[in-house]
Amino acid sequence: MNTRIPTDGLQLRSLVRPDGELELSLHRVATPEPAADEVVLRVEATPINPSDIGLLFGAADLSTVSSAGVGEHTVATARVPGAAMKSMGARLGQSMAVGNEGAGTVVRAGSDSAAQALLGRTVAVLAGAMYSQYRTVKADQCLPLPPGTSAAEGASCFVNPLTALCMVETMKREGHKALVHTAAASNLGQMLNRICLADSVGLVNIVRKPEQEALLRAQGALHVVSTASPGFAEDLTRALVATGATLAFDATGGGLLAGQILGAMESALNQTATEYSRYGSTTHKQVYIYGGLDTGRTEFARNFGMAWGIGGWLLFPFLQRIGGEAAQALRQRVATELKTTFASHYTRVVSLAGALQPEAMAEYGRRATASKLLIDPRL
Amino acid sequence: MNTRIPTDGLQLRSLVRPDGELELSLHRVATPEPAADEVVLRVEATPINPSDIGLLFGAADLSTVSSAGVGEHTVATARVPGAAMKSMGARLGQSMAVGNEGAGTVVRAGSDSAAQALLGRTVAVLAGAMYSQYRTVKADQCLPLPPGTSAAEGASCFVNPLTALCMVETMKREGHKALVHTAAASNLGQMLNRICLADSVGLVNIVRKPEQEALLRAQGALHVVSTASPGFAEDLTRALVATGATLAFDATGGGLLAGQILGAMESALNQTATEYSRYGSTTHKQVYIYGGLDTGRTEFARNFGMAWGIGGWLLFPFLQRIGGEAAQALRQRVATELKTTFASHYTRVVSLAGALQPEAMAEYGRRATASKLLIDPRL
Repeated sequence: MNTRIPTDGLQLRSLVRPDGELELSLHRVATPEPAADEVVLRVEATPINPSDIGLLFGAADLSTVSSAGVGEHTVATARVPGAAMKSMGARLGQSMAVGNEGAGTVVRAGSDSAAQALLGRTVAVLAGAMYSQYRTVKADQCLPLPPGTSAAEGASCFVNPLTALCMVETMKREGHKALVHTAAASNLGQMLNRICLADSVGLVNIVRKPEQEALLRAQGALHVVSTASPGFAEDLTRALVATGATLAFDATGGGLLAGQILGAMESALNQTATEYSRYGSTTHKQVYIYGGLDTGRTEFARNFGMAWGIGGWLLFPFLQRIGGEAAQALRQRVATELKTTFASHYTRVVSLAGALQPEAMAEYGRRATASKLLIDPRL
Repeated sequence: MNTRIPTDGLQLRSLVRPDGELELSLHRVATPEPAADEVVLRVEATPINPSDIGLLFGAADLSTVSSAGVGEHTVATARVPGAAMKSMGARLGQSMAVGNEGAGTVVRAGSDSAAQALLGRTVAVLAGAMYSQYRTVKADQCLPLPPGTSAAEGASCFVNPLTALCMVETMKREGHKALVHTAAASNLGQMLNRICLADSVGLVNIVRKPEQEALLRAQGALHVVSTASPGFAEDLTRALVATGATLAFDATGGGLLAGQILGAMESALNQTATEYSRYGSTTHKQVYIYGGLDTGRTEFARNFGMAWGIGGWLLFPFLQRIGGEAAQALRQRVATELKTTFASHYTRVVSLAGALQPEAMAEYGRRATASKLLIDPRL
């Protein structure tokens, strides 16, 4: 097997030129020989997560996207608006590989026994540059998938499952007793709902559409409120009273939603208050913004007292903060429950070149809840 | 002396009626007999702080204020807009005493030796209901002022001095090395500038007007930037690079300023970054909103990576968190430096009835940096 793999392969790259052009293209790159503690992975499934989109598109305006060429010569371009170029300074002119996570077969291995033991196994990795046909990675970065698990089933082993688990972990560590999640019908949201049901953690699911509410209720969700409902604020407050949630994770970021959640938390807390406090409830209310589905401004009215916080939240710094042992326990749970709690669903499977077609980019660039693409670099 | 004080006195009260009328009036209330560990204070100076205004006015619209009656029969009224009545629920129909802090002479004392020792002394207290002619308080709540210090000089011993000191304390405890302050030409801001100069702490002062910049520079401030300057963002970023400040205390609350500060912090951090990070700087940037000079919505563009937070900040929960010993050390510093670091300045002195005149209410209700009133309830 070691002798039959090609010495190079295609890799998807993202480049922002100083003149404001974003260029996505496929490069033929050499596959590095594995060191003693490394393996070469043939990538067979790698998802396009919201967390990949920032690096992939930068600050480009997706309404300007176009694509030329065929197969490995496909090149997609788009314009980065002038005002947004400032935030691109640190990556200008650098051709960057993309793709946080994926899975595939180990086709070559270094001499260490740990590396050799992986030869022929289907493994998942969180290693970056996964939108590639071949990737040379450390053996200890590989999570061997349970027998009978395909690369497609294991492709999203890390980002969504660990994010959902770490939301619950954050809740526990920061002293909250239940939580709120927006964009709750996403793959991640469905996982979080399954975790909370399994672990008896109170969860308030916020969705935008009736069909998303129906989907979550069919999956056993106890509290689902829709921003499309005229009674949204009252519905949300009622669910917050029922669960006692004082922590929210918000994937939308822009608009009024984060502030509306804090306002409803304050109303819920005041329903049980016995005395007037000029500064509002003394219970700390927190919203963590972990995504930017709405790229517009965040706005809020500060009608929720003084004990509140809004902030950014990212998986990787959180994992570092809790330490290796705690993080490993979470990873082990993912591997064990991969086909149940942590199952992912994809709208369709595309090749590397297929991911550069305008209609595909429009689909995942929209960051829509219902749409999720998987790349199979072998296609 | 114990026999010559009246058995009652006037007290300013704030009432929001269920029909949406705010009523400010003076009530004649009995002065409670001091228990063994209590003293009766004749209040001689009590400031109208921004932190008093919320309780005083509730959510009333100050453009609707009017006043009737004279002397102790003065009654001021204003309308609370319908939409804001929801936030008034917990105080509806309750006649509330106002005034966080003040100073005066101990005119009667309980039998305990600690209480007796205060008889005739000028003391400052943070006890609430200070907009009163007489207040019965615990002896151990009293901070005896150094000899030669007037009640007016000691009236603002607590709120502003401890707030300024606790901002620096927050900076140290949360691992920042310098700080930013908005509304920096206020009494509080001038104190903070004096503390930072004395303690060699980097401080970026943000003001709104050229004359405020001149005032702070005349007081030795090293970094002063004005939102009125066309180069505000660049000036701010330069001051942030120079100081390394990653923490800000914002008194304005509404508008774009909090987000602009985070954006400038991110720019300052990126000037020293060597590698592109798709999630922005990994250094945590924090803005605490501790006031609401701008009562409008808070808005921000999230152009500052993912390591950020915005939240409410209040003096009293912070003092509780740091514990009695640390808080006492801060109080002692205030008493020692009362005429220097912690000196306050007032625009004018009014009686209790004078505080209910429309022109006075317009003045302190405006929450303007340059305007600060002191009430002398003896007038």
